[in-house]
Amino acid sequence: MKIDFYKDSMVLLEGAIENVTAKLNLIRKYKIAQNDRDPIEYISSRIKSEDSMKEKLTRKGLEVTLENALTKVYDAVGMRIICAYIDDVYTIVDMLKKYKDLKLIKEKDYIKNPKPNGYRSYHIIFELSLDLAGETHPVFVEIQIRTIAMDFWSSLEHQMKYKKDIKNQELIVEELAKCASEIATTDIKMQTIRKMINKEE
Amino acid sequence: MKIDFYKDSMVLLEGAIENVTAKLNLIRKYKIAQNDRDPIEYISSRIKSEDSMKEKLTRKGLEVTLENALTKVYDAVGMRIICAYIDDVYTIVDMLKKYKDLKLIKEKDYIKNPKPNGYRSYHIIFELSLDLAGETHPVFVEIQIRTIAMDFWSSLEHQMKYKKDIKNQELIVEELAKCASEIATTDIKMQTIRKMINKEE
Amino acid sequence: MKIDFYKDSMVLLEGAIENVTAKLNLIRKYKIAQNDRDPIEYISSRIKSEDSMKEKLTRKGLEVTLENALTKVYDAVGMRIICAYIDDVYTIVDMLKKYKDLKLIKEKDYIKNPKPNGYRSYHIIFELSLDLAGETHPVFVEIQIRTIAMDFWSSLEHQMKYKKDIKNQELIVEELAKCASEIATTDIKMQTIRKMINKEE
Amino acid sequence: MKIDFYKDSMVLLEGAIENVTAKLNLIRKYKIAQNDRDPIEYISSRIKSEDSMKEKLTRKGLEVTLENALTKVYDAVGMRIICAYIDDVYTIVDMLKKYKDLKLIKEKDYIKNPKPNGYRSYHIIFELSLDLAGETHPVFVEIQIRTIAMDFWSSLEHQMKYKKDIKNQELIVEELAKCASEIATTDIKMQTIRKMINKEE
Repeated sequence: MKIDFYKDSMVLLEGAIENVTAKLNLIRKYKIAQNDRDPIEYISSRIKSEDSMKEKLTRKGLEVTLENALTKVYDAVGMRIICAYIDDVYTIVDMLKKYKDLKLIKEKDYIKNPKPNGYRSYHIIFELSLDLAGETHPVFVEIQIRTIAMDFWSSLEHQMKYKKDIKNQELIVEELAKCASEIATTDIKMQTIRKMINKEE
Repeated sequence: MKIDFYKDSMVLLEGAIENVTAKLNLIRKYKIAQNDRDPIEYISSRIKSEDSMKEKLTRKGLEVTLENALTKVYDAVGMRIICAYIDDVYTIVDMLKKYKDLKLIKEKDYIKNPKPNGYRSYHIIFELSLDLAGETHPVFVEIQIRTIAMDFWSSLEHQMKYKKDIKNQELIVEELAKCASEIATTDIKMQTIRKMINKEE
Repeated sequence: MKIDFYKDSMVLLEGAIENVTAKLNLIRKYKIAQNDRDPIEYISSRIKSEDSMKEKLTRKGLEVTLENALTKVYDAVGMRIICAYIDDVYTIVDMLKKYKDLKLIKEKDYIKNPKPNGYRSYHIIFELSLDLAGETHPVFVEIQIRTIAMDFWSSLEHQMKYKKDIKNQELIVEELAKCASEIATTDIKMQTIRKMINKEE
Repeated sequence: MKIDFYKDSMVLLEGAIENVTAKLNLIRKYKIAQNDRDPIEYISSRIKSEDSMKEKLTRKGLEVTLENALTKVYDAVGMRIICAYIDDVYTIVDMLKKYKDLKLIKEKDYIKNPKPNGYRSYHIIFELSLDLAGETHPVFVEIQIRTIAMDFWSSLEHQMKYKKDIKNQELIVEELAKCASEIATTDIKMQTIRKMINKEE
């Protein structure tokens, strides 16, 4: 039997991405009009692949159905927002929380509390109320927000996970953690300089 | 004194376009999932230029303010939706009317009741409730929906209005009206053939 | 054995599309600067799917290799250019022929000489000399150029080919042929009106 | 007298940007096919504004003409290429130099030899031979290539230049120079880790 739950959920998952992207672009325009600075460098998004959606449902002991995909998997829709400065990250979080059709489900501040390996990022999960054809559908959206530098670090760290038989793995892990901390320091310095230049405080 | 009402209203006007575009793209995905056919060929949009916004407010005897631009000018935001077939036009109208945050202000069916010059198009004005920074802003959006063939005709008819000293103007107007009616006939024939091929009825 | 000829040829095939698209966009800008009119409505493109590329090579009695895919299949890259008016089609053909790195391989004018079913379009195959990494690679590009109305007709006619058990097929074929001829007449009338309005002759 | 040299040169300047962008995208595809890594994060471009083009010509004691704009101003077209890693910068430079229709005019390696203020970037000026309507037009293109981190630094440093009455300017300049050097160190460390992970050497 063909399971087409994946194709059917696509309409809502893709719709959720475009809805949240429109919200983010509106925030950008608003902030540029207010203080002449775009808080976002770029936005990317992905929808969990069919295989990994099935695998996740199965692992959780759930049936592979459209309903479960939409109501039990928090990261079916993943969005990533890259900012130049750390304070931009918090600006975005604040502005997103003001939307009435975004219900906060969960958030984790890995910038204030980095993971042991050095990972820094703000994670937040919303339940979006998405209108379509006269009905309102709840869709989860997982959003990761971080600076360009944190994102660069994280994409390198990510590569390591998918390599086997890496020589000197311990050394690499250690070096990556050091880099993460140096990058965080530079991010703060750059933000301080920006505030001095623009007399922001 | 510099009037910057225009720049300030841009955030909401551009935000309205992106919001409605996201709604339209969701409708497309939904219809493709339902019956494998995209009801929209393409979407375009424009924001009334500063000069023509001021001119309109002045003509109406209104002050040139942000508030008046947003609350008294119906066509500050104009969107155009081009469909392959006539029935797609009505599909879009129906689906848009189902959105809770789109309030119907006015509609005119120039397809069923063409203008004397041959102009055919469905015109509809909505008031969109646009959320931003914890507040809800009403923004008018004027939408014109028509077939590719009607749009082609209309862009030629539009050229005529901006030309001076056209020789044989009466003849051209007459020929354009004839073309409009032939185009309408072909649109209906093509739709009939599509239904026969796909056994839609 | 995994045949990866497809993935390897992608670089050149996709590169060819972007190269020709850049040429077309330059032509548009040039014509707009010259006479204020964009000769192109839109451009689309596709690369032959892996299966249909293999099938074509096999049918021709050729080995499935990268070299054969690039040197024996004329329509591995297909581009479609949609114009508002018939004379735009010929403008594009003329301008493309002036490029030194586009070698004319074959052309067929189905606008002057429509197919019996009513199909109208200008077909032209070029061999593009594509520079990459210090070497010049020949890549075939098949281009179809037609008006919006011809394209609309052709997409409906195309639907018919993929349906089985169509009732009244003969009637449909006949009606489609009639529509094609009416559409062609309207295209000419609209072009005549455009010339009268703009005093082009 | 209306000087429209600017509008006329646009066709070639915009055409040059699209031509070089197509070359860069081809390089990306080629490198991804070769070693599974995209050497470019993103590309941006700008055309010198009319005022600043006139100002530059006048400052050089030249007449404000289309010909002078195209043949005497090296940076009428500016492109910026942002890479993740330092070695990607040199990969791009090497690949661009292999194009027969790009003639090297000038290059400056501010990565190996940073400016005193800490600025790091690879600058290269090419003369592109752009075909249009049967003629070949030479167009200068100035390209700046740098890492994400260098680009972040440079956009902050750029802000300083446009501010007046900055308090503690000397301190800021000093802090920026320190940041630049720390960023450069991190860039090298990250590249080293990448090579270790991927056993590139």
